[in-house]
Amino acid sequence: MVQYNIALIGFGGVNRALAQLVAERNELWQSELGFRLNIVAVTDLNLGSVVSRNGIDARMLVETNFEKGGFARLSGGSAEADNEKVIRQAPADIVVEATFTNPRDGEPAVSHCRWALENHKHVVTTNKGPVALAAADLKAVARRNHVHFEYEGAVMSGTPVIRLAKNVLAGAGLSGFEGILNGTSNFVLGRMEAGLGFSAAVKEAQGFGYAEADPTADVEGYDVRLKVVILANELLGAALKPTDVSCEGISALTTMDIETAAKEGYRWKLIGSAARLENGSVEASVAPRRLPLDHPLAGVSGAINAVSFTTEMLGSVTITGPGAGRVETAYALLSDIIAIHRSASAGSITEAAE
Amino acid sequence: MVQYNIALIGFGGVNRALAQLVAERNELWQSELGFRLNIVAVTDLNLGSVVSRNGIDARMLVETNFEKGGFARLSGGSAEADNEKVIRQAPADIVVEATFTNPRDGEPAVSHCRWALENHKHVVTTNKGPVALAAADLKAVARRNHVHFEYEGAVMSGTPVIRLAKNVLAGAGLSGFEGILNGTSNFVLGRMEAGLGFSAAVKEAQGFGYAEADPTADVEGYDVRLKVVILANELLGAALKPTDVSCEGISALTTMDIETAAKEGYRWKLIGSAARLENGSVEASVAPRRLPLDHPLAGVSGAINAVSFTTEMLGSVTITGPGAGRVETAYALLSDIIAIHRSASAGSITEAAE
Repeated sequence: MVQYNIALIGFGGVNRALAQLVAERNELWQSELGFRLNIVAVTDLNLGSVVSRNGIDARMLVETNFEKGGFARLSGGSAEADNEKVIRQAPADIVVEATFTNPRDGEPAVSHCRWALENHKHVVTTNKGPVALAAADLKAVARRNHVHFEYEGAVMSGTPVIRLAKNVLAGAGLSGFEGILNGTSNFVLGRMEAGLGFSAAVKEAQGFGYAEADPTADVEGYDVRLKVVILANELLGAALKPTDVSCEGISALTTMDIETAAKEGYRWKLIGSAARLENGSVEASVAPRRLPLDHPLAGVSGAINAVSFTTEMLGSVTITGPGAGRVETAYALLSDIIAIHRSASAGSITEAAE
Repeated sequence: MVQYNIALIGFGGVNRALAQLVAERNELWQSELGFRLNIVAVTDLNLGSVVSRNGIDARMLVETNFEKGGFARLSGGSAEADNEKVIRQAPADIVVEATFTNPRDGEPAVSHCRWALENHKHVVTTNKGPVALAAADLKAVARRNHVHFEYEGAVMSGTPVIRLAKNVLAGAGLSGFEGILNGTSNFVLGRMEAGLGFSAAVKEAQGFGYAEADPTADVEGYDVRLKVVILANELLGAALKPTDVSCEGISALTTMDIETAAKEGYRWKLIGSAARLENGSVEASVAPRRLPLDHPLAGVSGAINAVSFTTEMLGSVTITGPGAGRVETAYALLSDIIAIHRSASAGSITEAAE
């Protein structure tokens, strides 16, 4: 029986959803995917940490209502979360990083990933910070230690945009992409099309839980910019930093702009894009764009995201799917673990657990 | 240096486009993909056959204007095409089947595939016939002989619909799909929206080369039905025959139907779909459907195709891209060869050429 021991770093919505899937589906995964998961450690800034070589009951984890520091109640638990110690020492094959995204330096998530990789543990993450700001470094550490660094969920949650472009479209001559990569701003634009002003639309998004109390990162394009950096570096071989990407959000768009576009057969969308230029360099930007209605991204509405790839062999290929959601993002982690498992089964990673 | 010897069965548009790619890109493939291709045999009902252990110059093949039986002019050539002999005896690692689709029994393509697999040669094909009508059989022959049977191009040309669903969406809980899988009928519906009657729209499609002289297979849904059978069997584990799939085309739709739908915020599309039912069986159909404009397939226009997958983890995930085209379909063959190469590199297929 193949079983991977996993350590969950951060126990917010995403890792909680993953624990729930473990509780419900290990038997199914065993038969369909060929492995099961065993949670051997959890750390959380608020709840503390718990390590157990034999595994922590996933159902108990998701069903217990822990107070602050509540992991201290568990066998092997502590009210404190010493992430470095847990990541380095827990008997995990795979470290699942799902703490918050810090858009400046990616910390502490970058360190979480580094500690894991240095200790020969695979890392799967949905955290944009370390991927956008330190992927090249972390990939080098992973290579040196013969482990995987996987991050499908950093862009468009579980919608497999990275794996589609990188693996399945190999040899197709990918030269660029454009995408709707932020559900909040896309929802706001949709509500403005229905007649709301910008502020009212943002308030509505906050009411539905789509937008944060401070919506800046969503509506000013900073969230999209991190995703553009990730995709450009990963798929086009660029080495961009966020400051290399020009960034304009949707807050300056007026209801009048939206209405005029509609009358003329266009629709405003916040587009993150990048393209390889003739000279080999990659140019990337985030900006609102007026798309004709027959553009493949014009019909992408609400919280749905999409990316269109420009390829030499196929022209435009577009993938459309959820851009967020707890289960959707937890599935990204599962898909990363499946990739690790397949690679291990094929013999190219010999360190993986059996 | 990894080089795969390939035999081209059929030398129409698709295999000719593949030969052109070989002529232009072998150096690029060598560095980017890790292998090059060497054409060691070509057979064509009209042109004859040619076999050369050392390889046939790809550029010469595509640039020469061969008359009927013209392969006889080449060293190792013959005016006759003895497909069985060539497939069984040519020193090929991979047989590339791209003859015509026979929707009744898939012959002679089924035999072409079988002869190749029995002789320990991988098969890549864009031919719907053998995949829709004999996939289970041919896969069993492939397994027994430790070779691959790959057919990404049988549905949506090079748009990687099969590999996306089967590999990249593993574990997502796929339970069904619906797709726009025939560019000709989709083009005809678009022109009817612009005011043309059915017959005038079909004539226009014929003028552009989108529709055959006899458009029946496209507009009556038979082409879509074969694709639905392929996807349902491959992705949902069904064992459907074409006659198991109810099939209605678009020829009964009137301009009035189209106009009424438009007024009410709908659009008619020819949809091929399948879903796994509660009892585990799979139900599939082809029929025109009135889609609301915010349906993910409503905006798919002209010769573009798309498939929406229904998944438990991600809800709906849609891939949109070309559904036909010579280069686009030749790319499907390349993507199949890449899959064979990766599998060989990972050591799971030990018979592959080095």
